[in-house]
Amino acid sequence: MAEFEGKDAYPEGYFFGSSHAGLKQNANDVLLIYSCKPANFACVFTKNSFPAAPVVVSRKIAESSKKVSGIVANSGCANAATGKKGIEDAQEMVRVAMEATKSEYPFLVASTGVIGSKLPVEKVRKAIMECPSTFSIPGEEAAKAIMTTDSFPKYCITKYSDFSIFGITKGAGMISPEMATTLTFIVTDAYADNEFLKNSLLEAVEKTYNRISVDGDMSTNDCIYLIANGVSGTKLSGETAERFQKSLENSLMKLAMMIVKDGEGATKVIRVLAKGFYRREDARSVAKSIGDSLLVKTAIHGEDANWGRVLAAAGKTCLPFDDEKVTISFGDIVLFKGEALKYDERKVKEYLKGNEITIIFDAGQGVEEYEYITCDLSEEYVRINARYRS
Amino acid sequence: MAEFEGKDAYPEGYFFGSSHAGLKQNANDVLLIYSCKPANFACVFTKNSFPAAPVVVSRKIAESSKKVSGIVANSGCANAATGKKGIEDAQEMVRVAMEATKSEYPFLVASTGVIGSKLPVEKVRKAIMECPSTFSIPGEEAAKAIMTTDSFPKYCITKYSDFSIFGITKGAGMISPEMATTLTFIVTDAYADNEFLKNSLLEAVEKTYNRISVDGDMSTNDCIYLIANGVSGTKLSGETAERFQKSLENSLMKLAMMIVKDGEGATKVIRVLAKGFYRREDARSVAKSIGDSLLVKTAIHGEDANWGRVLAAAGKTCLPFDDEKVTISFGDIVLFKGEALKYDERKVKEYLKGNEITIIFDAGQGVEEYEYITCDLSEEYVRINARYRS
Repeated sequence: MAEFEGKDAYPEGYFFGSSHAGLKQNANDVLLIYSCKPANFACVFTKNSFPAAPVVVSRKIAESSKKVSGIVANSGCANAATGKKGIEDAQEMVRVAMEATKSEYPFLVASTGVIGSKLPVEKVRKAIMECPSTFSIPGEEAAKAIMTTDSFPKYCITKYSDFSIFGITKGAGMISPEMATTLTFIVTDAYADNEFLKNSLLEAVEKTYNRISVDGDMSTNDCIYLIANGVSGTKLSGETAERFQKSLENSLMKLAMMIVKDGEGATKVIRVLAKGFYRREDARSVAKSIGDSLLVKTAIHGEDANWGRVLAAAGKTCLPFDDEKVTISFGDIVLFKGEALKYDERKVKEYLKGNEITIIFDAGQGVEEYEYITCDLSEEYVRINARYRS
Repeated sequence: MAEFEGKDAYPEGYFFGSSHAGLKQNANDVLLIYSCKPANFACVFTKNSFPAAPVVVSRKIAESSKKVSGIVANSGCANAATGKKGIEDAQEMVRVAMEATKSEYPFLVASTGVIGSKLPVEKVRKAIMECPSTFSIPGEEAAKAIMTTDSFPKYCITKYSDFSIFGITKGAGMISPEMATTLTFIVTDAYADNEFLKNSLLEAVEKTYNRISVDGDMSTNDCIYLIANGVSGTKLSGETAERFQKSLENSLMKLAMMIVKDGEGATKVIRVLAKGFYRREDARSVAKSIGDSLLVKTAIHGEDANWGRVLAAAGKTCLPFDDEKVTISFGDIVLFKGEALKYDERKVKEYLKGNEITIIFDAGQGVEEYEYITCDLSEEYVRINARYRS
């Protein structure tokens, strides 16, 4: 039952429509994903203390409704920090999506764009009403409708004979000037109850999106929605459930990697593997500390095998280590093992010229490990983020 | 009893000597601070899991010795990640300093420079032995001997009629390519016991050095030493003790600000004031989250009043807020109060052109506050840190 990708592989029973409300120039900025059959669903929201209005509204829907009719989203305006009016506007988007599709169940709603601007709700209403007339657009167009600073549309299809998964995402490394928003929508024609979907999504997000970062910033608008309409007739259990889980994780990983690769100014993907720990949470702290260190990120950008910065970043966690058991490698080249090793400088330089660099920090203690994925930090990142809005 | 600064204001009974061991090119790289009378002392060390050899050795001295004869330090080699040999070398620096000054009590030792290289101990030994013959150098020369990527020597004198405080520091924003080391040495001719000095130093460091940051990296070599030889005959108690504490905090703040201003590529100092909190630790989390956000730091670099990034960075702490009570100001210009406010764009632009920017986040809850000081993030920072070593 090999997985494959292609235009005919979309999950059954979904319609994608997009239109132009004028929030972005010369590009569609409203997206409607409609399921012909009310769907079960699960959501993961930002933990930011100032969630945007669509997050507040979708969270309420997730708490009160057993099914949804689909997803309505816009780009070009985050509808964040917009007070009570913002909430009303997000609710209005849901209401209009229901009206446009004559649906009984609500839509999950999401927005991305500049913080603090109110939604031009009349224009958005009109645009949502137009969406059903475009209900034949391919997945790529759906992905385009939620792009902001993204340099390419991000989507991913996985088809089996018994079910299919399709996902879109947006984000240029969680660092975009619009406040770093990541939106991700996954639809499947498999059947599972909400409990199953929730556990499945949480597990998959923990293994994928929660491990990527560009600059550690967290948006007010981040959300990941999974909806399952069951139109394929395949119920997820046993082997099918396992295959679904693996497939969902693969899809999210592919989408997440597209975001890292599209990191503003990024030239290299950095994989940090912290291994040899007694506790997984310690491996995680160390991997994050190394991956988030500006000194490490700039060193990799400069193709410099500066293992001293890796050591210092790991040490910033203040965790107890036995120096003599610690090993630091770049790819398969060991640079530090209790003390600085002599290494072939040319071989390391060659390795660091690549587009994907793996840094391995081995604590030499136990068997727990954690992988964290980020990108290098370039002058271009600063340029993009300093010049925005001016 | 006004404080003043000047060449004749050095604390009594101290000698500063420096020499050239060849660790840096064409500049003195070894410093000896000698107290003619064994001095009481206090230390604050890095919490990094991989402390450099001189930190390990000085920590032992702090645990086992009641007095010290002074401080011996070198720049150009961090003696970090150097294993047992590194420890022996740091101990040898202490032994040679004692021999050179015929002292009974040990010296605190400190190093700064590239991680992973072994100390050329013969050269350093010879250089330390030469120091006493230069025991008349001014404080500025002492500060020069510990410089690495610093663009200017950093020192500060405060003289009262009854005691005097002199301090030197090095660091270009805790972000220097040598791994971000901050060394700070404070000497005074006042008298106080070690218990007093320890509490005094901890309190002062918490109010000064612990509030500054450039990129959040923490060095393997950071240390702050305070020594008090009592030669002035002034015992610290009552009003004198209060004046000393204030004076120590002022000195450390001046030195800390020199580091921020010398931050690699920095063009602006950013003061983040988080106020209106119920708990001081929450104010601290928020101030740090805003001050460490790359999006905020690049926005300030670009002179962009992007309050949305400030809100999102504060929200990253996941602390509970009442949106409607939150106020965000740049200087005295209020940009957000429960929702986006209309403001004079020209006035804000004018303010952001300054060299020192204050961002105020008011939670509108209680009376606790915390100030955090950092600098902007420029393309130059990336350039310096990516190009080092290559």
